[in-house]
Amino acid sequence: MTEAEPASGPGFAAALADAAARTERMLQALLPPTTGDRGEAELAAAMRHAVLNGGKRLRAFLALEAAALFGHTGAGAERAAAAVECLHAYSLVHDDMPCMDDDDLRRGKPTVHRAWNEAAAVLAGDALQTLAFAILAHPDTHPDGEVRARLALRLAEAAGHAGMVGGQALDLAAETAAEATGSTLSAAQVKRLQALKTGALIEFAAEAGAIVAGAAEADVARIRAYARALGEAFQIADDLLDVTGTEAELGKRVGKDAGAGKATFVDILGVEGARARAAALIAEAAAELAPYGARAARLVEAARFVVERRS
Amino acid sequence: MTEAEPASGPGFAAALADAAARTERMLQALLPPTTGDRGEAELAAAMRHAVLNGGKRLRAFLALEAAALFGHTGAGAERAAAAVECLHAYSLVHDDMPCMDDDDLRRGKPTVHRAWNEAAAVLAGDALQTLAFAILAHPDTHPDGEVRARLALRLAEAAGHAGMVGGQALDLAAETAAEATGSTLSAAQVKRLQALKTGALIEFAAEAGAIVAGAAEADVARIRAYARALGEAFQIADDLLDVTGTEAELGKRVGKDAGAGKATFVDILGVEGARARAAALIAEAAAELAPYGARAARLVEAARFVVERRS
Repeated sequence: MTEAEPASGPGFAAALADAAARTERMLQALLPPTTGDRGEAELAAAMRHAVLNGGKRLRAFLALEAAALFGHTGAGAERAAAAVECLHAYSLVHDDMPCMDDDDLRRGKPTVHRAWNEAAAVLAGDALQTLAFAILAHPDTHPDGEVRARLALRLAEAAGHAGMVGGQALDLAAETAAEATGSTLSAAQVKRLQALKTGALIEFAAEAGAIVAGAAEADVARIRAYARALGEAFQIADDLLDVTGTEAELGKRVGKDAGAGKATFVDILGVEGARARAAALIAEAAAELAPYGARAARLVEAARFVVERRS
Repeated sequence: MTEAEPASGPGFAAALADAAARTERMLQALLPPTTGDRGEAELAAAMRHAVLNGGKRLRAFLALEAAALFGHTGAGAERAAAAVECLHAYSLVHDDMPCMDDDDLRRGKPTVHRAWNEAAAVLAGDALQTLAFAILAHPDTHPDGEVRARLALRLAEAAGHAGMVGGQALDLAAETAAEATGSTLSAAQVKRLQALKTGALIEFAAEAGAIVAGAAEADVARIRAYARALGEAFQIADDLLDVTGTEAELGKRVGKDAGAGKATFVDILGVEGARARAAALIAEAAAELAPYGARAARLVEAARFVVERRS
């Protein structure tokens, strides 16, 4: 497919916007109010700034669509979607800090440590991570405690030292090594790093929807495999955008990862190689969903969308 | 009671040390190994440095003793104790950062951001919080998912924006206000701030032991009330130590809270008033445990211990 003929059409864009709206309504209800004593009000405002930022809500979409595929369209899936978005937002707030990626802008708005200060960024990120677990473990998410405990455990596995935070640690270490000795990662190392840093939470988002919906284990495994391929395609697209995108489109600095010695798929595969790999991953993701036929059409479109997006 | 005649005797000290040893064995098994790729190994080392630091393990002791009071002495309580210690350690790592309390030493050893760097402190703290939830939500902690989900939810409530992190945000705001305008908090505000910042997690520690042990709701409520009184006494003792302790005893700077315009019980009540309030709280804590008679003797001793401790 070419950029002139997007495979993810207007119907998909509307579905994505609808999922975002549903998730944001749920987030509005779940985030703390910006009232209360000084300090508490500021913490709540920083949490809201970080989460309610006009993101695409791809992870929330995956959770909601995976749940719908197995017949669940209730508040449980919206709560799971909101939890994933809180976890994702926390990681961005901390990653943006001066001691990490040092970014002033996020989707065209000041990052939390710029809008407030570094202490506020630490605390708002911390509280958003906690809130993600509070949402999943609450009886409103699912009447069965086994399901809620499984959701909390799987989020913890996806987000912790053997998942997202581990990937971020690998990324920072690779950057330091590149600056010090010019050493670079192998293709396998970049793939693993990105699978942890970005892939694990994307995979959990889709999985959470399937779990909330009570999908059979074989179906949960299939959804995970789909989301794993989608997640890698997403990261490749991110690396391509860092090379080919514009700051106006992205609302953040571009060309930054390459300059910082960050390990990217584009470094390893080149621009054309990266595009080819992304296309192969979309096909892989679609193949996982083949048993569900037309009912999974939107999830297939989502895989195309992550590669075609311009921001 | 006077400092010359400690009410918590050598039997208590041995029990505290035993609880610490059991919890540390469990933590050794639950923390990630310091092998693996550069970055992952460093993250694991920083997490271990933060948690395995020779602390008194008061929170772990409360979890283990509360579980034992209701007949549970198994691995489930040790896992709950380990989870609380991971959560506590994460909060210390982040609080010690330059943008927060800016401390170089913790129990006489360099803090994580001094031993490594600020990015390592952010990530190690983040991953320790996640690990706490992973431990509680794992089937090894309790066979019943309802129990695991309840533990995760209650930890999230105690640790998040309406608990520990909220208290920390109130504390930083009070400090800023004191520096800018010389304004100080009322006694009620200090009490609430400390109940959130320190009390909520201490309360959860004892509660978690009771929940893992399958205690009746009335007993869980009693244990919480006991731990709430103990937690306030603990914070008053902390404030007294900041005024009366020595750096050698504490392994950290003293006289710092007063100097930084921090809201303390000593400011509000004076040294003698604070000592009297702590004694009243110990009596309150002991009264909650009266129905359990001699079986709760160690928990009663724990309340005395938190006030008598020299570090």
